[in-house]
Amino acid sequence: MDEPNLVERQLRSTTVYSGSVLRLRVDDVELPSGRRSRREVVEHPGGVAVVAVDRDSSVILVRQFRYPVRSALWEIPAGKLEPGEDPLRCAARELEEETGYRAGVLEEVVPFYTSPGFCDEVLHLFFARSLEPGDERPDEDEVIETRRVSRAELDDMIARGEIRDGKTLLGLFMAIARGLV
Amino acid sequence: MDEPNLVERQLRSTTVYSGSVLRLRVDDVELPSGRRSRREVVEHPGGVAVVAVDRDSSVILVRQFRYPVRSALWEIPAGKLEPGEDPLRCAARELEEETGYRAGVLEEVVPFYTSPGFCDEVLHLFFARSLEPGDERPDEDEVIETRRVSRAELDDMIARGEIRDGKTLLGLFMAIARGLV
Repeated sequence: MDEPNLVERQLRSTTVYSGSVLRLRVDDVELPSGRRSRREVVEHPGGVAVVAVDRDSSVILVRQFRYPVRSALWEIPAGKLEPGEDPLRCAARELEEETGYRAGVLEEVVPFYTSPGFCDEVLHLFFARSLEPGDERPDEDEVIETRRVSRAELDDMIARGEIRDGKTLLGLFMAIARGLV
Repeated sequence: MDEPNLVERQLRSTTVYSGSVLRLRVDDVELPSGRRSRREVVEHPGGVAVVAVDRDSSVILVRQFRYPVRSALWEIPAGKLEPGEDPLRCAARELEEETGYRAGVLEEVVPFYTSPGFCDEVLHLFFARSLEPGDERPDEDEVIETRRVSRAELDDMIARGEIRDGKTLLGLFMAIARGLV
């Protein structure tokens, strides 16, 4: 931070829960005004998400049951970073695990925070091209369905509200803006 | 759900923490394969985010210190839903509280999940136009700075990686795709 006057200063930190995916802590902080407040913070390892574009400019979507929202969502391939894992390596791994494809070209587009008001999760968004079949098969406990979707079909799915996952909408709109799909 | 075979069935649910913003529960679930697993779920009230476009097609951004990521981020105006609050009313309220503007036209574009792998948070994205000065002043403990940003400046900020908030990137790319900015 180059503007220390903006900083909310940590006075006390209490870890409430430490699980396999998340940690939750509750911190007492001092605001720049001098007032005190409390912050509930979810710590998450961060992850990657991959817009994989095929030779014919179609995009590969996967469908997964998402327990917190009790429904199956169409998403771009994505996954959590292992401790110390490089995002590029993670993107290659998750793409192959979830879709069976390897990417000849894999470039990071942007890292972004999913919900910085209460969570430190960073997602690294990648574009993947020059797809070739790999060796991995999707884990049946994770991915339900894989589908190649053309630009026209994407536009329909978006217009009908069938894509409800934020990272997927962002990845698709960025790929469209760059003329990739 | 119209495909009950996809559902992860809740076997047991334990609330670990119940705070002012978040609840955290840990559920034991049965997967469709019959295997058992555990799900850490953050419950969040959901919220709104508003791409407010001025007469000259510039967009209003606000800068806030985000404690979980220990930095100040440029974002579109946003805020949490009060219990039972209509998203449209919430969007009007947050826009005026954070920027001082009222919108003559306020339309919901898309609801989306910010991080459906571990959290049920839904954000309702709005486009606001026909802005007029309102009565509210920004809360100094919340918004640090408000700025009107032209399309050329937005492109520069995005290219330089200065916009790191997911809902803001999504809102801006959707507004660009619709020709609003």
